[in-house]
Amino acid sequence: MNIGMIRAAAGRLAGHARRTPLLASPFLDALAGRRLLVKPECLQHTGSFKFRGAYSALSAMDAKTRARGVIAYSSGNHAQGVAAAAGQFGVPAVIVMPSDAPALKIANTRALGAEVVLYDRAAEDRDAIGERLAAERNLTLVKPFDDPFVIAGQGTVGLEIAAQSEARTAEVLVPCGGGGLTSGIALALAGEAPDMRVRPVEPEGFDDVKRSLETGTIQTNTSLSGNICDAIVTPRPGSLTFPIMSAHCGPGLTVSEDDCLRAMAEAWKRLKIVVEPGAAVALAAALFHGDALEGDTIIAVVSGGNVDAALFTQALTRFA
Amino acid sequence: MNIGMIRAAAGRLAGHARRTPLLASPFLDALAGRRLLVKPECLQHTGSFKFRGAYSALSAMDAKTRARGVIAYSSGNHAQGVAAAAGQFGVPAVIVMPSDAPALKIANTRALGAEVVLYDRAAEDRDAIGERLAAERNLTLVKPFDDPFVIAGQGTVGLEIAAQSEARTAEVLVPCGGGGLTSGIALALAGEAPDMRVRPVEPEGFDDVKRSLETGTIQTNTSLSGNICDAIVTPRPGSLTFPIMSAHCGPGLTVSEDDCLRAMAEAWKRLKIVVEPGAAVALAAALFHGDALEGDTIIAVVSGGNVDAALFTQALTRFA
Repeated sequence: MNIGMIRAAAGRLAGHARRTPLLASPFLDALAGRRLLVKPECLQHTGSFKFRGAYSALSAMDAKTRARGVIAYSSGNHAQGVAAAAGQFGVPAVIVMPSDAPALKIANTRALGAEVVLYDRAAEDRDAIGERLAAERNLTLVKPFDDPFVIAGQGTVGLEIAAQSEARTAEVLVPCGGGGLTSGIALALAGEAPDMRVRPVEPEGFDDVKRSLETGTIQTNTSLSGNICDAIVTPRPGSLTFPIMSAHCGPGLTVSEDDCLRAMAEAWKRLKIVVEPGAAVALAAALFHGDALEGDTIIAVVSGGNVDAALFTQALTRFA
Repeated sequence: MNIGMIRAAAGRLAGHARRTPLLASPFLDALAGRRLLVKPECLQHTGSFKFRGAYSALSAMDAKTRARGVIAYSSGNHAQGVAAAAGQFGVPAVIVMPSDAPALKIANTRALGAEVVLYDRAAEDRDAIGERLAAERNLTLVKPFDDPFVIAGQGTVGLEIAAQSEARTAEVLVPCGGGGLTSGIALALAGEAPDMRVRPVEPEGFDDVKRSLETGTIQTNTSLSGNICDAIVTPRPGSLTFPIMSAHCGPGLTVSEDDCLRAMAEAWKRLKIVVEPGAAVALAAALFHGDALEGDTIIAVVSGGNVDAALFTQALTRFA
């Protein structure tokens, strides 16, 4: 992995991925106690940054391989990103989703043109189903984060931040699951804005990346459910993403569920954007954990906005 | 008024107003039955397009006049736009607001640095208060729409649409109150994209612009309250804005309050943006009144996102 791969991905994504703006509000600056810039990837196609990595991976395949189709495992944002990217290339996409995934996410993935294969999380082996389908139909797997072309696609967020920010020195807070977005941005900024420092943000109790960075070895989460930030709860950092984060990132941060709901309400009120809980962790750290941050400028990445109405109205009712 | 004034305003606004993106969703395309592009001015500074006109007016003043300060009458978006623009120039702003304006809007206007003068809508004469203050302190009035520099500032939305849209032929639907935004966009597109046609959109029962365009003379609304789209309910089109709309716009359209709430829910779900009712009228017409529209491509302007939480959650609860 190197920044040349991210620049190449940016070239392939031009005119396909949306260049999201950099937002700010004097009210959020006051709350954060410093200058706060927000990169709203909720405004990306399919409502999350995942479209970038998916499109990057598909556009890097040779045309024959791509034409046979792709397969992905996901219950949410990666599913929609791969479905939409495959749709743009006019190639088949099979998405293996748990049968208890939110009905809207299943419907969206189908509506974007993908074939959805449901499996029973309790009784069936997802990987076995996926491998059988891939072998039968000669499909190429698009991994959610531990793939160089996926990381390169997510890294284009970092190139845009470097080009759009008026500040050259900043802490850049990134919602972190498997580390595809975090490592991509870190690699891009190491080349384009070396005085910016990336810091991964995770939900309290699911801080595998924070602990991995502290110990220098890959750590795992003991639990994988029971948090509203489920979109970024993954077992452990990837074997490609972890060394990049280890080389380039500052210490990890954690936030509570209420921090996330409060950040969602602030983003609604002050920036007029819709943020999902797992995508709000970096903004929550910027707004409510300033004592753990350094410098005059914070850039917070909001990674997606695919949230259901009940949870969103709960955030507004409690905190708006 | 001419397009040269809009281009000049764009020059003055560069680096100050936000260049909002052009958004789209395949789900909204399906609902509208055609290609639908959305210009989200809710993402503009202060949460509405009003910042453009206010900054345009202040930046066009000679420095001595501006330094004495400005005054505006508004209960909402224009108030915040003028306050923020004056703050950027470091000059005093006095905003005359009704004492029953929403507490948040009053607080926001103050927090943006303006002096808020409250008056009793039932017992006091707003214009008399404003004229006395303006005379005493030598303040310059910034009108909400019927001012050439304000119209020119709002017209920069049209320049951006012409530059950003892949389509050259389209109907461009614009939320219409006094007509500042509508006439500015119409004038910009007449020069930059003459095959695009602007159509003003209003709430049912408050269709003064639609009737004015039909009859060729300025018509008034019989009522000025009792609609959730209050932000765009004005007595009549302006004496500067009406001739421009008359020369360049297609027929007006109207939508119901429920159309607006439904459009707010769709914008939340599919575009991840926060839209206020009066700013949702054009999107509502695009989504639910397609039989009144022409052509393959519709561009809907979303003019603002300053909505209170109770009304927003009502939209989600009923329609998301």
